[in-house]
Amino acid sequence: MEVVVESEVCRIMMGVNESTIKGYPHPSISSKGAFEWTLKKIVRSNISAFKFLFLHVQVPDEDGFDDMDSIYASPDDFKRMDRRDRIRGLHLLEFFVNRCHELGVACEAWIKKGDPKEVICHEVKRVQPDLLVVGSRGLGPFQKVFVGAVSEFCAKHAECPVLTIKRAADETPQDPVDD
Amino acid sequence: MEVVVESEVCRIMMGVNESTIKGYPHPSISSKGAFEWTLKKIVRSNISAFKFLFLHVQVPDEDGFDDMDSIYASPDDFKRMDRRDRIRGLHLLEFFVNRCHELGVACEAWIKKGDPKEVICHEVKRVQPDLLVVGSRGLGPFQKVFVGAVSEFCAKHAECPVLTIKRAADETPQDPVDD
Repeated sequence: MEVVVESEVCRIMMGVNESTIKGYPHPSISSKGAFEWTLKKIVRSNISAFKFLFLHVQVPDEDGFDDMDSIYASPDDFKRMDRRDRIRGLHLLEFFVNRCHELGVACEAWIKKGDPKEVICHEVKRVQPDLLVVGSRGLGPFQKVFVGAVSEFCAKHAECPVLTIKRAADETPQDPVDD
Repeated sequence: MEVVVESEVCRIMMGVNESTIKGYPHPSISSKGAFEWTLKKIVRSNISAFKFLFLHVQVPDEDGFDDMDSIYASPDDFKRMDRRDRIRGLHLLEFFVNRCHELGVACEAWIKKGDPKEVICHEVKRVQPDLLVVGSRGLGPFQKVFVGAVSEFCAKHAECPVLTIKRAADETPQDPVDD
């Protein structure tokens, strides 16, 4: 009987984002769901065979809502703002890294800025993971017009196999655009 | 240290089809590639933890090209034709079942008729696998108009996580619509 042997670690890249309801450092329902599903169904007890690569893409704050009451008087103020965003993103990644650490699964995590779907595909090209996992809100075509469809774009364009994991129906908030 | 334990077998459903170049019983490049990738990267040596469910959807022969020289003189002639198609499909499934048997991975396989994307999503609803794996030719938007995009439809509509595995560039035939 031939046996499947793969000595190399399977590197699973995951795009993760913050909750639109609870904000940083809480992960979105779909990011958290996709991560837990991957642990339960793919990694299982085969802990040493996998490594997670967590990528969080921060979207530049176009409307500046969060910075409404801020006053920018010097270049340093902008640096401080950048640093604050970065720290928020780091706290999000901390959630995933802590969970991996608890379980003993190897991981790495990093932050990029830009359009999530473009940045994720670009990072896939650079990092060459074995698999990209993306959580999806599972929105219908109408809602997709507004929120964009990162998972759909990645499944089409990323240069590696892509696992799309939709949010469970019983975890969908009243407004499905929330996550 | 908490340990991920999942005693239940992870049931991986795979939509498989025949080669458009070599015909039955040869699997398409993307079906075969997706299957081998899943064995190598997900199943690995963790053989007893997974079960494959192979679904082959036969597309009703609309233009009847294959039956050009056939003469239908009685209801039995049609039954015979159906039987012949069924046998061809079975030989395709035999390829995947044999490979699983060699490796000692549990599997099941069955055939349905209809529009592959619709049938696959319907079977996901009925069978409730943990994961659906679909091979993809990775065609551009122009080519997709003609060949349909089973993987894209399934990633959107199937009621379970969907793993889309594109064909490797070095395995793409001169005409990318071939598979």
